[in-house]
Amino acid sequence: MAQIIDGKLISAEKLTKLRQEVAEFVGAGNPVPQLTAVIVGEDPASQRYVRHKMVACKEVGIASETKWLPANTTQEELLQLIGQLNGDDNVSGVLVQLPVPEHIDERTICNAVAPEKDVDGFNEINMGRLALDMEGFVPATPLGVKELLEHSNIATHGRNAVVVGRSKNVSLPLAILMHSDGKNATKALDATVTICHRYTPPKELAKHCRQADIIVVAVGKPGLITKDMVKPGACVIDVGITEITDEKTGKRKLVGDVDFEEVRQVAGHITPVPGGVGPMTVTMLMYNTLKAAKTQAARRLV
Amino acid sequence: MAQIIDGKLISAEKLTKLRQEVAEFVGAGNPVPQLTAVIVGEDPASQRYVRHKMVACKEVGIASETKWLPANTTQEELLQLIGQLNGDDNVSGVLVQLPVPEHIDERTICNAVAPEKDVDGFNEINMGRLALDMEGFVPATPLGVKELLEHSNIATHGRNAVVVGRSKNVSLPLAILMHSDGKNATKALDATVTICHRYTPPKELAKHCRQADIIVVAVGKPGLITKDMVKPGACVIDVGITEITDEKTGKRKLVGDVDFEEVRQVAGHITPVPGGVGPMTVTMLMYNTLKAAKTQAARRLV
Repeated sequence: MAQIIDGKLISAEKLTKLRQEVAEFVGAGNPVPQLTAVIVGEDPASQRYVRHKMVACKEVGIASETKWLPANTTQEELLQLIGQLNGDDNVSGVLVQLPVPEHIDERTICNAVAPEKDVDGFNEINMGRLALDMEGFVPATPLGVKELLEHSNIATHGRNAVVVGRSKNVSLPLAILMHSDGKNATKALDATVTICHRYTPPKELAKHCRQADIIVVAVGKPGLITKDMVKPGACVIDVGITEITDEKTGKRKLVGDVDFEEVRQVAGHITPVPGGVGPMTVTMLMYNTLKAAKTQAARRLV
Repeated sequence: MAQIIDGKLISAEKLTKLRQEVAEFVGAGNPVPQLTAVIVGEDPASQRYVRHKMVACKEVGIASETKWLPANTTQEELLQLIGQLNGDDNVSGVLVQLPVPEHIDERTICNAVAPEKDVDGFNEINMGRLALDMEGFVPATPLGVKELLEHSNIATHGRNAVVVGRSKNVSLPLAILMHSDGKNATKALDATVTICHRYTPPKELAKHCRQADIIVVAVGKPGLITKDMVKPGACVIDVGITEITDEKTGKRKLVGDVDFEEVRQVAGHITPVPGGVGPMTVTMLMYNTLKAAKTQAARRLV
């Protein structure tokens, strides 16, 4: 029976560590780090996500602020606000909660956030830096997966890993972090990595997964990874989150992409949904915000 | 017996097409595109590479210029020259021949070339754009491999591809181009991609390769890919180039990473070394330079 990788617990430990680091940073005479989130429109899910982030800020001692803009905000107005935040020395990190309304170009917005305040890691410059194994901001979810693997002492060097999905905010950054050179700035994981996606035939997906020591799946298709696709002892990380109706209780519940009850019988390690990768995402955003504050403080000293 | 993918021929055809496109572009009243190469120091290999590039420019009707700087040029001086070239409307593309002397930081130099003139695709912004499937400059060698695959009608959609190597100028851009979404700006190839590298155990490398419909190897280890590692009918693209002494003749010669004589007996398609990927690299640099000139002309119209 697989060992459960308890994302809630690991996340709580990491938050405790971050709280100490923030306290030390501030204790050394630096200003309190601040994360500013921008929401455009009234999407309830976005509001919920931002609220979670603000709660985490409070937990670790990072100041936080949310800027609410109406759904009819123009792209120009949003860019203006981002420009203000980029130039504001009190703001360490800026995140624009996605999605933005359709009349606003998401890519333009992501690129407008100053690279050194881009705690989401969505600016094209930070994506380039990650690809080049350079210091920069890595999106929180792939960073959280890396943290879970390391915390659970999962061997990755020279092992076979499969990343299922090819999203730009999770799967690709993770595939880069998993295959790249551990001796470079990103301290990557030196695994052999296979990237599977919607056009990978199901039989091939199963074959690749069965050869994997580590499977990370980030697709959003409940039940995609079944027991027969997992090598005994493999580590299975489930990034998928889908809300479904529980057949027995009739209630809504969150599930991942992995058939958890079945797969846990063969896997060596497995993350649950909820309580696996999810909690790590917000935590690693805190990590990125502190990192931003530290980098900015170091630059001001020069 | 494998069909030989004749890089010389495909390259010559592409150059002919590019010459026509350059003529049309200039005929429409645009200035002649210009590529400026910068060499720092006296490395003979660098001089030879740049000469090849300049010859190709002449062939397609692109103006060219080489700036020679002494080996003791400071980073500041080099950055100043790049800044001048960035600001010079007569210059469409700028390339700094690598390697630069050790006292100069390669990454700082690559990032200093304006993204819209970065025909080598080595600026972190172009790397980020490639990773995000956005319009930008892709390094010439991976672009050349894509061109060879397409020209030879090698099916890639949903097929298994293995990229051996994890260099940032060839393997990683290629892995991105091969697995990403063909419907986005980079017109990527929708393959399932496995990235193998120095820490992939030899047995695992062999296994991954045997499952591949396409193998691209870019390592610089002669004889790395042997017959038993190749699935009958697979397409084998050899990016490796190593100079060795021929045991029979005692003469120096170039070889790739693939045991060509053996592998051609099982592969469906194969590129020779020399005469495979090599010629495509310079050709795709011409493609990038024309693209740069066109983009800049379009911007000036706005």
